[in-house]
Amino acid sequence: MGVMAIRKIGVLTSGGDAPGMNAGVRAVVRTAIYHGLEVVGIRRGYAGLLDGDFRPMPLESVGDIIQRGGTCLYTARCLEFMTEEGQQRGYQRLQDAGIEGLVVFGGDGSFHGAQKLHELGIRTIGVPSTIDNDIGACDANIGFDTAVQTAIQAIDKIRDTATSHERTYVIEVMGRSAGHIALAAGLAGGAESVLIPEVPYKLEDVVAKLQRGVARGKKHSIIVVAEGAAHGVEVGRYIEEHTGFDTRVTVLGHVQRGGAPSAVDRVLASRLGAYAVELCMQGVSGAMAATQNGELVAVPFDEVFRSERKPAQELCELAEILSI
Amino acid sequence: MGVMAIRKIGVLTSGGDAPGMNAGVRAVVRTAIYHGLEVVGIRRGYAGLLDGDFRPMPLESVGDIIQRGGTCLYTARCLEFMTEEGQQRGYQRLQDAGIEGLVVFGGDGSFHGAQKLHELGIRTIGVPSTIDNDIGACDANIGFDTAVQTAIQAIDKIRDTATSHERTYVIEVMGRSAGHIALAAGLAGGAESVLIPEVPYKLEDVVAKLQRGVARGKKHSIIVVAEGAAHGVEVGRYIEEHTGFDTRVTVLGHVQRGGAPSAVDRVLASRLGAYAVELCMQGVSGAMAATQNGELVAVPFDEVFRSERKPAQELCELAEILSI
Amino acid sequence: MGVMAIRKIGVLTSGGDAPGMNAGVRAVVRTAIYHGLEVVGIRRGYAGLLDGDFRPMPLESVGDIIQRGGTCLYTARCLEFMTEEGQQRGYQRLQDAGIEGLVVFGGDGSFHGAQKLHELGIRTIGVPSTIDNDIGACDANIGFDTAVQTAIQAIDKIRDTATSHERTYVIEVMGRSAGHIALAAGLAGGAESVLIPEVPYKLEDVVAKLQRGVARGKKHSIIVVAEGAAHGVEVGRYIEEHTGFDTRVTVLGHVQRGGAPSAVDRVLASRLGAYAVELCMQGVSGAMAATQNGELVAVPFDEVFRSERKPAQELCELAEILSI
Amino acid sequence: MGVMAIRKIGVLTSGGDAPGMNAGVRAVVRTAIYHGLEVVGIRRGYAGLLDGDFRPMPLESVGDIIQRGGTCLYTARCLEFMTEEGQQRGYQRLQDAGIEGLVVFGGDGSFHGAQKLHELGIRTIGVPSTIDNDIGACDANIGFDTAVQTAIQAIDKIRDTATSHERTYVIEVMGRSAGHIALAAGLAGGAESVLIPEVPYKLEDVVAKLQRGVARGKKHSIIVVAEGAAHGVEVGRYIEEHTGFDTRVTVLGHVQRGGAPSAVDRVLASRLGAYAVELCMQGVSGAMAATQNGELVAVPFDEVFRSERKPAQELCELAEILSI
Repeated sequence: MGVMAIRKIGVLTSGGDAPGMNAGVRAVVRTAIYHGLEVVGIRRGYAGLLDGDFRPMPLESVGDIIQRGGTCLYTARCLEFMTEEGQQRGYQRLQDAGIEGLVVFGGDGSFHGAQKLHELGIRTIGVPSTIDNDIGACDANIGFDTAVQTAIQAIDKIRDTATSHERTYVIEVMGRSAGHIALAAGLAGGAESVLIPEVPYKLEDVVAKLQRGVARGKKHSIIVVAEGAAHGVEVGRYIEEHTGFDTRVTVLGHVQRGGAPSAVDRVLASRLGAYAVELCMQGVSGAMAATQNGELVAVPFDEVFRSERKPAQELCELAEILSI
Repeated sequence: MGVMAIRKIGVLTSGGDAPGMNAGVRAVVRTAIYHGLEVVGIRRGYAGLLDGDFRPMPLESVGDIIQRGGTCLYTARCLEFMTEEGQQRGYQRLQDAGIEGLVVFGGDGSFHGAQKLHELGIRTIGVPSTIDNDIGACDANIGFDTAVQTAIQAIDKIRDTATSHERTYVIEVMGRSAGHIALAAGLAGGAESVLIPEVPYKLEDVVAKLQRGVARGKKHSIIVVAEGAAHGVEVGRYIEEHTGFDTRVTVLGHVQRGGAPSAVDRVLASRLGAYAVELCMQGVSGAMAATQNGELVAVPFDEVFRSERKPAQELCELAEILSI
Repeated sequence: MGVMAIRKIGVLTSGGDAPGMNAGVRAVVRTAIYHGLEVVGIRRGYAGLLDGDFRPMPLESVGDIIQRGGTCLYTARCLEFMTEEGQQRGYQRLQDAGIEGLVVFGGDGSFHGAQKLHELGIRTIGVPSTIDNDIGACDANIGFDTAVQTAIQAIDKIRDTATSHERTYVIEVMGRSAGHIALAAGLAGGAESVLIPEVPYKLEDVVAKLQRGVARGKKHSIIVVAEGAAHGVEVGRYIEEHTGFDTRVTVLGHVQRGGAPSAVDRVLASRLGAYAVELCMQGVSGAMAATQNGELVAVPFDEVFRSERKPAQELCELAEILSI
Repeated sequence: MGVMAIRKIGVLTSGGDAPGMNAGVRAVVRTAIYHGLEVVGIRRGYAGLLDGDFRPMPLESVGDIIQRGGTCLYTARCLEFMTEEGQQRGYQRLQDAGIEGLVVFGGDGSFHGAQKLHELGIRTIGVPSTIDNDIGACDANIGFDTAVQTAIQAIDKIRDTATSHERTYVIEVMGRSAGHIALAAGLAGGAESVLIPEVPYKLEDVVAKLQRGVARGKKHSIIVVAEGAAHGVEVGRYIEEHTGFDTRVTVLGHVQRGGAPSAVDRVLASRLGAYAVELCMQGVSGAMAATQNGELVAVPFDEVFRSERKPAQELCELAEILSI
């Protein structure tokens, strides 16, 4: 096709870890080796890139990791790589190691770094990996399904005790600027109210709804709150003060980041990791490997940066209807 | 809109049970009540329809069921309803009870029954619910994601012991005519080979691949087999005879039908259950409530019957590449 | 034996709910019916006793509950029953209903109520049920094993992300006055330090140990804190201030109360529930049904009130040795 | 104490793998290093001993394994080590490597090998590790609790579909000569009948009980069968032929060997692994590290070989009473 053949690619994971990253790294390594390429693992994201923390990745380096949470390549934040000097040094590290292509698992910030390396001449492909599911221009981000699954398993447990005690429970889930986890977990967990950063709300409406429910015979209620919408503790205090209902608060926290990835995340990560290598081989660069309507596509980073994933209006209304 | 307003709808679950059916029934009941309709639960599928095994479903009848596997309405096979007399009797039962619309959770066979009732004048909407995921003309069937999740959790466990013992394991999963569970579970479970009914295979190729793996240093291997492609026990015997490898077989069986539904299945069931009620209200009948490319759509049963879901060629190739 | 035959017994769950209570109630009902007794379920603990919130419990009332968390009989706190008038009224309620024996699932406070009813002439047997495991004079309390299991599943998930990020994680578990959950979860979760209310500690020692670990190459650390020993958030802040390590805090909260009971808890609850009925029939009263060294025993309440379960010195030392 | 100080110990896992072995190996390594000893890991049990498949085990070699199923040291059967020549060669291997003490995780067969090495002059301590729980003279074997937990999670899933379909399910669990898993899983899973090798049974009694249940309104039944008592498939066929009930059979198989160990197994393995090292240091040899009534004890192998763990009569009767 006139595309310069590539012989060696690097792979790194960056930003917050997401369940499924290991499945994705495995797919990169196996697909690359299948096609006769050499693969180098770069540890601790861009920090490791600058430190030259590289190691060769033969087939056995990705044995028995498809089912593990976290990332075997580690991840870290790296301020230095946000500077032009840092990016130049990173480029040089790759050049010195003979790495012509780079697959980056991460989110928006990680893709900005990848874009810079692309501009400097490295073929870079991003793979959307963040439990927040806030990277747009694609069906879903790796890690989101597992995080929601973890959240609903916690909600199911809390439902047991809520039912026994006839109490109100407030559960704060992750999502600083995005309410995707809260909305999906709230729907799947059967929550009475879901508070997300994208939709304005009034706590007095939440309280009014709780009181209507009790008037109709509801014995217990579950409120799911995205951390970016409100502090669970404050919501709990407000409810208790305004209703007198016995109210308990749980902040799920970092359990949502870990755990064996779900089948959905493993399959998605496998597909995208393999596709990222193929794109590299085809000469594509500065783009995200993703699915749109279930089909594999390459989306230019610029388009990714302009896009945004909003919680579907339909799901917000559904949450409202189902919680009568 | 000129559509006759509807006042009372029925809901039943039919065929093999699928995790998520309860979440779907809950959505039907809550959405209907939200819109002022009355809901009647019909137990044991079409068998209960013929027996008049009806009960009113107030809001509290679907409390705390969103997270439960199985179906609170029970399900059963019903030969009598496959006859014209049976269908006529079923229609009469609904008429007598004043039920104008009917939501049917099930698979292909259940939809054929629903089609008959539609032709007799009942507004019927089907909701695709089968772990086999073989109903086409839609993105996914309720229960499939949970079944795959159950299968990979079993594979993960077997992987622990496989790694410790350096053995070959054959795992037979459900799927008489469809390989969707096997393909997804094989991909997500990191299987060396996946045998499905839709793709011809030779056991000698499976053996050759196993031997290549061992020659390259693989210590253990996992083969996933759809029950419709081969008997796990026979595959295991063949492998052992032709390689001498210590080989163990597990037939996952009915564990794949149960368990708390996954978030994916709960959200899908909630969306489709709610949408089925809305379609009924709009006067739509003889159609399946489903998602296509993530969007809610009504697909005429005739189109559903003509369509077929084939395992994606891309996924079959991916399974091959990732198992080198 | 000269013991007056009993014809009708009551059963209630009181105090905080504990996974396994349902399995215990099922065992009470089935054993009583097996022996020809009638069983009455009293809802919401002593509150329901005073309200006369009784219902007959036939065999089918305990079908499919052995695997459920929470309690199908509900539970509540009841201030009124702590007064002499309340206890007298409760006694009268039981008399009026012809209930001669009472099985009480709960903790210390619940047993004090049971003791009063015993003194008034009702045959009462307590069954130790609290996730805190702080009721002494027996091997274990119902619910403890499940709560520890839930805690370590959370710790396992956090370990995934801790490993990926090279961070310190502080995990606060339940236990206001008892460190049993923290100690077991810390040991089983592989924690670097465990802080419990029964053992004095200095945060500077925790910090010194963390720093020794890092000096030896440890990349991440997990600290488990019983809520009665310290606030997780404060421990996290102290560590971060004194080490500069990136530190995250998770407060597990009420997820520890729910979930399907573990096999250990189901078997224990089944044994104790059945044994409680047999004790009632034998004329024993004012005692706790429990296991000591694996054997079923009846322990007089007075002895239970005097005893205390201390964390084993051996386990505390083990946690220290294994976290070098 | 006059005991010769020991400087280097070996550790191996042998026989069938059991969840918790990794937690036990971790405890051996950490305790040994804590006391200033050197530790050598011997891979693949006695096979690796004969091959000299040794590797040093520093602290980091047991990082992040406490939660993993299987065994990081691998395991294998070894016919050669059952001969005198093999044992002599094994002894020589240890001598050559300067290994003075050996900790062996495994079952009865593994302990016989350890006994031989003890007689040849190696300080050997066994740690009871088998899901079958058939090693006597102690409270419990490592791996048993996890296997039961896995079995009841499967039974819970099957119960969902059993309830929906009003069917009879036969579930075959592991246990060739011991019914401990079947009995505990049957009790905790709420089975109608439990068939174990230690207790004679008649299938006609099982059928009669099923029919009594149905006559009383039972809609579904679960029968748990230990593989050593009967073939699940044959039990299923017998029931179907003699009752006409729709009956399904599941053979759980090797999923019971894997999975993250339960808290109970992790704590037990940690205690016994640490204690085994201490016994070695104290000069004890030819004995099993175990708990009896919760206390750590050293039981001479000869006593272990003479003892036998029988299913408790009380539990068998309880299973009978609770399944009316």
